[in-house]
Amino acid sequence: MSRRPGEDERGAGPLAGVTVVDLTRVLAGPFATLALADLGARVIKVEPPHGDDARRFGPFVNGDSAYFASLNRGKRSIALDLKRDRDRAVFESLLEGADVLVENYRAGAMERLGYGWDALRERYPRLVYAAVSGFGHTGPYSGRAAYDLVVQAMGGLMSVTGHPHTGPTRVGASIGDLGAGLFALAGVLAALYDRERTGKGVKVDVGMLDCQVALLENAVARYFASGEIPRPLGARHPSITPFDAFRTATDPVVVAAGNDALFAKLCGAVDRRDLAEREEFASNDARTANHEPLKNELERTLAAMPAEHWLAVLDEAGVPCAPINDVGQVVVDPHVKSRNMIIEADDPDAPLSMPGNPIKLSGYDDPQKRPAAPRLDGDREAILSGLKRR
Amino acid sequence: MSRRPGEDERGAGPLAGVTVVDLTRVLAGPFATLALADLGARVIKVEPPHGDDARRFGPFVNGDSAYFASLNRGKRSIALDLKRDRDRAVFESLLEGADVLVENYRAGAMERLGYGWDALRERYPRLVYAAVSGFGHTGPYSGRAAYDLVVQAMGGLMSVTGHPHTGPTRVGASIGDLGAGLFALAGVLAALYDRERTGKGVKVDVGMLDCQVALLENAVARYFASGEIPRPLGARHPSITPFDAFRTATDPVVVAAGNDALFAKLCGAVDRRDLAEREEFASNDARTANHEPLKNELERTLAAMPAEHWLAVLDEAGVPCAPINDVGQVVVDPHVKSRNMIIEADDPDAPLSMPGNPIKLSGYDDPQKRPAAPRLDGDREAILSGLKRR
Repeated sequence: MSRRPGEDERGAGPLAGVTVVDLTRVLAGPFATLALADLGARVIKVEPPHGDDARRFGPFVNGDSAYFASLNRGKRSIALDLKRDRDRAVFESLLEGADVLVENYRAGAMERLGYGWDALRERYPRLVYAAVSGFGHTGPYSGRAAYDLVVQAMGGLMSVTGHPHTGPTRVGASIGDLGAGLFALAGVLAALYDRERTGKGVKVDVGMLDCQVALLENAVARYFASGEIPRPLGARHPSITPFDAFRTATDPVVVAAGNDALFAKLCGAVDRRDLAEREEFASNDARTANHEPLKNELERTLAAMPAEHWLAVLDEAGVPCAPINDVGQVVVDPHVKSRNMIIEADDPDAPLSMPGNPIKLSGYDDPQKRPAAPRLDGDREAILSGLKRR
Repeated sequence: MSRRPGEDERGAGPLAGVTVVDLTRVLAGPFATLALADLGARVIKVEPPHGDDARRFGPFVNGDSAYFASLNRGKRSIALDLKRDRDRAVFESLLEGADVLVENYRAGAMERLGYGWDALRERYPRLVYAAVSGFGHTGPYSGRAAYDLVVQAMGGLMSVTGHPHTGPTRVGASIGDLGAGLFALAGVLAALYDRERTGKGVKVDVGMLDCQVALLENAVARYFASGEIPRPLGARHPSITPFDAFRTATDPVVVAAGNDALFAKLCGAVDRRDLAEREEFASNDARTANHEPLKNELERTLAAMPAEHWLAVLDEAGVPCAPINDVGQVVVDPHVKSRNMIIEADDPDAPLSMPGNPIKLSGYDDPQKRPAAPRLDGDREAILSGLKRR
């Protein structure tokens, strides 16, 4: 069970000494266990003999999936067929030594394997068990499969994303999966803390759709308070103006001038003090009511010069603004690099850069080079000999 | 400091007995401390005398902000002016009894108040300190203010969201804030676990921009592997087809037929077996290369009948599909309700429904009615008398 970290392990993170048995595939579950690995846990990825499906998602670097590589760095792999007795015995030995089990099968799959919560809690009373699924383990849709697109659509996030004339739009990152991964991560950590005090593990049941509803957040209360259905607004804020993307002579920029003082600064900086004096733009409410004419006026001015010019001018004036970076621009941003948010997987065969860990903890290292994702079954010997030593 | 939960507190959640002093305002920080409250922590919201700005964000229910209400339910409030000595003494007494301090000021603000990490760790060695800021506490942009729109733009998420002809689009939920809130939540929980073993608190430094980069996830590795800049694709998946939104005679629906077997089922269910036989749609790669003609063919058929018809037909055939629900449809969905994802704040003056807690833990209640958000300074007496009793 959970060992106190030795001095040599102390640098690895707050979860040093925690062992996670990881049955997850593709995205939501692996994103949660990636964060656990980044926090110092020993994550043993138990893959079926043909491996996590994500190993076959392109593009590839020297034959290795970049998708798989970025989600599974720092984990160990063993291939087990949970329908074969010998492999089940190995799996059960792993659970004996584990603190956490995470899986993202469809509801009911673990019961069919004989590893449902009732069986697990009986045999491994200190085990924290996290189940990440499309719809959670209860309720009318619990048996259904879900994908990111399905829960983004059902959960309302698409309905508030997009431009008024395009209608509902999928969020370009897989926030249906990633949101669930983050709530599952929090659930596992809360359960580990709980176990320190109660001595017992709990089951963490996280449904992707539930997490989408949680991320709608104040849109739900706004709907109940006003009866108005929130709609896609492009880049615009529903109640703060100007707070939007604006065209320039080159690329668009975003400007967030959320109060009268910032609006006055904005008008001064772009040499349009006339706007600050007009009655229809005199307060945030007035600006929101007249957001379209205001945007037209501002864009008429901004169209004269390139984005870099305006960003420099607005920064100088203290008006919050930003370029709309593409991924190629993000990864070379000096601040992003200085925060160590682009790290490198330490794999001589397939070197690859990928996002780092955004949870920066005092007293723990935040290495720029991190262990690469494992080969399928690549840690079998080390994992099995660890079992024998116990 | 952290007390073991008594029997009467045990039902409240894994963080029963944990006290959080909460200096956060508006969104990213309050979203993190909301989750801590949902997990059973006692969250003391320390507001400036004029209150959290979010109290003034509409719409209002009986004069109370729905925005504030949904982010701050279950917390307690005391108003303190941290520039006045008497209030500073109260604040420091609160820290003496606290396990966690969370704030989301701009970098440097806590140091100016005399509550930077060096001062805090010296005086309160067991305190976990979480700082949520736009750019984190290090790096060239650390002194700048950020807003959700700014980090969604700078962090690349807007660049991959939208339709090809609209270009970059803001995600309609404030994922710049909420993402940071979730990573900060995980950081606090990991630090609490760590403290059980080391006896010491750590500082958790979470920057909103860093979290956006983390949420880009495999888009970063894909870019490094292929050199291709990911662009907005509407609702379409970059490498799986058909995986998109499709027009019907009424509302659009999403369909996620991610492999050959599901594609065959889809073609059978909509009576277009001819599509499954065409060479240009014979494999996922072929379908992705020819996604536009395939979409046109499918929409030609789907246009004949309403969304409900196709959802029933596809569900029956086992093809993952979903309606694109708006917020009004989400909150009445029977599954969402059965998962208790729409809860009610227990406020007789301003009853309001809002999202529940997606982290479902065995052995802990998941109440449908929850304590409402506090009035400004509404818990002063109880909080102060709690200080005297110690």
